[in-house]
Amino acid sequence: MNEAGGEALTLDDFEARARSKMERGAYDYYAGGAGDELTLRANREAFDAVWLRPRVLVDVSRTDLTLQLLGDTLSMPVLLAPAAFHRLAHPEGELAVARAAASAGAVMVVSTLATCTLEEVAAAAPGVRWFQLYAYRDRSLSENMIRRAEAAGYRALVLTADTPRLGRRLRDQRNAFQLPADVRMANFEAQHPLMTRPEAASGGRTLMNYAQEMLNPSLNWKDLEWMRGATRMPVLVKGILTAEDARSAVEHGASGVVVSNHGGRQLDGAIPAVRALPEIVDAVAGRVPVLMDGGV
Amino acid sequence: MNEAGGEALTLDDFEARARSKMERGAYDYYAGGAGDELTLRANREAFDAVWLRPRVLVDVSRTDLTLQLLGDTLSMPVLLAPAAFHRLAHPEGELAVARAAASAGAVMVVSTLATCTLEEVAAAAPGVRWFQLYAYRDRSLSENMIRRAEAAGYRALVLTADTPRLGRRLRDQRNAFQLPADVRMANFEAQHPLMTRPEAASGGRTLMNYAQEMLNPSLNWKDLEWMRGATRMPVLVKGILTAEDARSAVEHGASGVVVSNHGGRQLDGAIPAVRALPEIVDAVAGRVPVLMDGGV
Amino acid sequence: MNEAGGEALTLDDFEARARSKMERGAYDYYAGGAGDELTLRANREAFDAVWLRPRVLVDVSRTDLTLQLLGDTLSMPVLLAPAAFHRLAHPEGELAVARAAASAGAVMVVSTLATCTLEEVAAAAPGVRWFQLYAYRDRSLSENMIRRAEAAGYRALVLTADTPRLGRRLRDQRNAFQLPADVRMANFEAQHPLMTRPEAASGGRTLMNYAQEMLNPSLNWKDLEWMRGATRMPVLVKGILTAEDARSAVEHGASGVVVSNHGGRQLDGAIPAVRALPEIVDAVAGRVPVLMDGGV
Amino acid sequence: MNEAGGEALTLDDFEARARSKMERGAYDYYAGGAGDELTLRANREAFDAVWLRPRVLVDVSRTDLTLQLLGDTLSMPVLLAPAAFHRLAHPEGELAVARAAASAGAVMVVSTLATCTLEEVAAAAPGVRWFQLYAYRDRSLSENMIRRAEAAGYRALVLTADTPRLGRRLRDQRNAFQLPADVRMANFEAQHPLMTRPEAASGGRTLMNYAQEMLNPSLNWKDLEWMRGATRMPVLVKGILTAEDARSAVEHGASGVVVSNHGGRQLDGAIPAVRALPEIVDAVAGRVPVLMDGGV
Repeated sequence: MNEAGGEALTLDDFEARARSKMERGAYDYYAGGAGDELTLRANREAFDAVWLRPRVLVDVSRTDLTLQLLGDTLSMPVLLAPAAFHRLAHPEGELAVARAAASAGAVMVVSTLATCTLEEVAAAAPGVRWFQLYAYRDRSLSENMIRRAEAAGYRALVLTADTPRLGRRLRDQRNAFQLPADVRMANFEAQHPLMTRPEAASGGRTLMNYAQEMLNPSLNWKDLEWMRGATRMPVLVKGILTAEDARSAVEHGASGVVVSNHGGRQLDGAIPAVRALPEIVDAVAGRVPVLMDGGV
Repeated sequence: MNEAGGEALTLDDFEARARSKMERGAYDYYAGGAGDELTLRANREAFDAVWLRPRVLVDVSRTDLTLQLLGDTLSMPVLLAPAAFHRLAHPEGELAVARAAASAGAVMVVSTLATCTLEEVAAAAPGVRWFQLYAYRDRSLSENMIRRAEAAGYRALVLTADTPRLGRRLRDQRNAFQLPADVRMANFEAQHPLMTRPEAASGGRTLMNYAQEMLNPSLNWKDLEWMRGATRMPVLVKGILTAEDARSAVEHGASGVVVSNHGGRQLDGAIPAVRALPEIVDAVAGRVPVLMDGGV
Repeated sequence: MNEAGGEALTLDDFEARARSKMERGAYDYYAGGAGDELTLRANREAFDAVWLRPRVLVDVSRTDLTLQLLGDTLSMPVLLAPAAFHRLAHPEGELAVARAAASAGAVMVVSTLATCTLEEVAAAAPGVRWFQLYAYRDRSLSENMIRRAEAAGYRALVLTADTPRLGRRLRDQRNAFQLPADVRMANFEAQHPLMTRPEAASGGRTLMNYAQEMLNPSLNWKDLEWMRGATRMPVLVKGILTAEDARSAVEHGASGVVVSNHGGRQLDGAIPAVRALPEIVDAVAGRVPVLMDGGV
Repeated sequence: MNEAGGEALTLDDFEARARSKMERGAYDYYAGGAGDELTLRANREAFDAVWLRPRVLVDVSRTDLTLQLLGDTLSMPVLLAPAAFHRLAHPEGELAVARAAASAGAVMVVSTLATCTLEEVAAAAPGVRWFQLYAYRDRSLSENMIRRAEAAGYRALVLTADTPRLGRRLRDQRNAFQLPADVRMANFEAQHPLMTRPEAASGGRTLMNYAQEMLNPSLNWKDLEWMRGATRMPVLVKGILTAEDARSAVEHGASGVVVSNHGGRQLDGAIPAVRALPEIVDAVAGRVPVLMDGGV
């Protein structure tokens, strides 16, 4: 739609620029979704089909996007969704993103699969940050991450609930995508050195195989209760797409739910988040905050 | 769809001709919308999705489109929506349009941002004319315009309610669109000379920046009441897209509402006017006329 | 979609073949619709959106499409809609179509604007034929046609109700379409010789202008009553698209209604016939037959 | 969408590969549908329009797709729909498919029009197999097939109910598709030798004509009752698309219904199976299993 050249005015412009600058495999890792990418495309189409009903003759000389969320005052109601491997896109990786988020007043949700350590990200800039956690088979690994996130001043945990195993991302399979040598899963270095460069450690097995070995398919609501007990931070559940699960999350003590289909990267055919949102808002009934992952 | 050559039979034909004759920046200023132009496109698609239910065996040997509207008898129920800078398209600008409107029996709604003075437009042709007014920060500017419009025989005021700030029109930004030297905001000349050629006056600042400085973001329903008190003309509110605001307009004394999303040029994602129309007609319940801006 | 070559298996194949063989203006006269051809396209899309619910395990060894309709036994429930100027497509014109209809057992509805006389068509083949009549300004012209149709054994009259004036067919205007010299409105020859070759008679005025002069814009339900009184044939009304008009037709003595938007050739934006059908069937409630014009 | 080269990761990849390797007529025989292929396309679009509502935080460390169906334990709830002439695609034909089905734990539904005998297929691999039967004019032919299927250990009969005559498959007509010399209807060899190579036997008549001569257009619900009496195997009815017929199937003793439009190959315009499914599930109300033919 947009040329890669010229000033970047929209997210589409940035995406076009990324496509022209990034290595194909890395670009596809970010841009692709699972399966036939039905959900990936539908995420955007579903937004486009929602029409705004603008109100007029309201004094907008002073506008205020400030939001109280889980004990913090946010200057705008936008969070950066957790995404892995920022150094695939730029050598400064999550550090640059942390600075950008701080300057914009957005909450950065740092991925466990960051390519800088969570401590490095915390030191890179001021601002509110949350930490995203997959549920690993090795619970001590999760516990260690929680301790470190607390120590580094993270304000909330986001439990990714929709990834008992990794989505079937065909672009990555077709590209035989591997992490480049200088892109490491930095958070695992101290505790689990083999994980930091899986290909080097395992002689050619792909990132995908490795991730599958670490992810915990037995993850269930009891793990949410365990996580709540293991931290003084509030815990949100990310990946909720049904009213039933939104109610369960609240009943199991989640401090918030993130309506998300993982950007179309997990189960292809999953309902677009914006279409799932109304039933979830109804089910939560104001008991905890409901956040929505644009997924676009 | 249509070639620029050949006889112009449809509005699409005229648009194609304009595209081939006009300078790119000027054409895009008229043809473009805000943001991703979702609303711009949807305005047309929404019309195409409305099916007519034609009645037959009705004597149509004498058809009469005459309409009584705000004290005037109109020979057809079509108004020319206010549009800025007609001299971008043709050297005679609003004067030629005034003559065309008069010969067709359509009401011309003259824009404050006309490139001829409102007095020149009034003198160009007979016919009913209304005057469109933005709400400027400087209320004396608005008051002066009202006085002049009354003196020049304008029959109604149209308060543009959906522009507390200018829409984000990406085509203009990409084109770095500037008004050409011979296109002036003529209505400001007497009172606010710096406004007449903003670029000359301000050394390269764009039209968009300037417009933002003049528009009044604190505009609200009280300004409508002020405007009603400041003129003996009926005042219509343009830019209504919700039943709530239609009711407010009537309650605050508007003599009519114009259902409009500003041709998709203000808030991208705003609902197409024709889809918003039914709820507004219901809300107004015949108390004042409801006009609709095609926006196509 | 389909190549013009090869065996013609579908109507699309025949259309492709016609496009490749016919002169452009003549092809467009048949294939085009009014305005932007929204209704023309929607006629087909509306059919494609209707899903059949097939029943199974029904003995279909003997299938019978026979239909009793207005006193005749038809071997299949398909009629050829009236279309003007068959000689535009083939030198044998309506005579060939009459033979084809007879061999297929379909009722041919012969157009007033046939290029063979209604008596020639009647003599060309056996079979049930109906006669289509526009409402001409000159009632004696209509009466004379009725007398001739009765004498030639036509079994019903079809009053075209949706053409108080001709649709705005832009392809014809762009093509400056004129009837070729050897294509005559044969039914008018005896009575109204100037009509038979309008261009010759009027020095270049188009078919469209001429048709507009003959059509009767004051046509109304009383004309239907007049026509019923003027013939012993049953009279059907063609061009019904609303429940209201379907009820009126029955109340004014129509022997049947034809749900039709004139193949998208009259009012662009008119509802597709298949979408209008349910409300009309409900309104007629079995009192007279309801026929539907595919319009595709 | 997908290149024919590279690893085949999706069904689309396999289809692309087949298109590049198979003779055009054979590929089109499999890939084509009836008429304009509206139903063929809609089968897929209807699936894409169904959004999944994934549940999260459910222990999926042990997943079990096992299904009890008609007395057998199936390791996964997928059956291979009966398809004719597998040797068109590969010299090993149904024997290779039987081995693949067995290794995947899927039930193979063997077509009467297999290119290996039902006994050969049964001997090719372990696993549960069902036998599909058209209703032939010659009932002894059907009876003989049933006896042989029972003797060879088939576990159920699937009566194809939607083929009283063959769908109008235009690709086959345009390709003048004929079975190659080495592709035989093997099941008919013993009993009906002329059927095994119809073209050889009949001097150029097409497969389609021949099939029409064998299929029984008088097939009805009594034939289902006859078939139930003629076998000790459970009998399912395939081709159900309405609640009415689903109820009839249960009432006439079917042990299951297969919701199917024959992959869009019989009646073009028939409703997509996934859209027909809800009303059928309601109608059956759990009395017998409801299977669905993807048709994609």
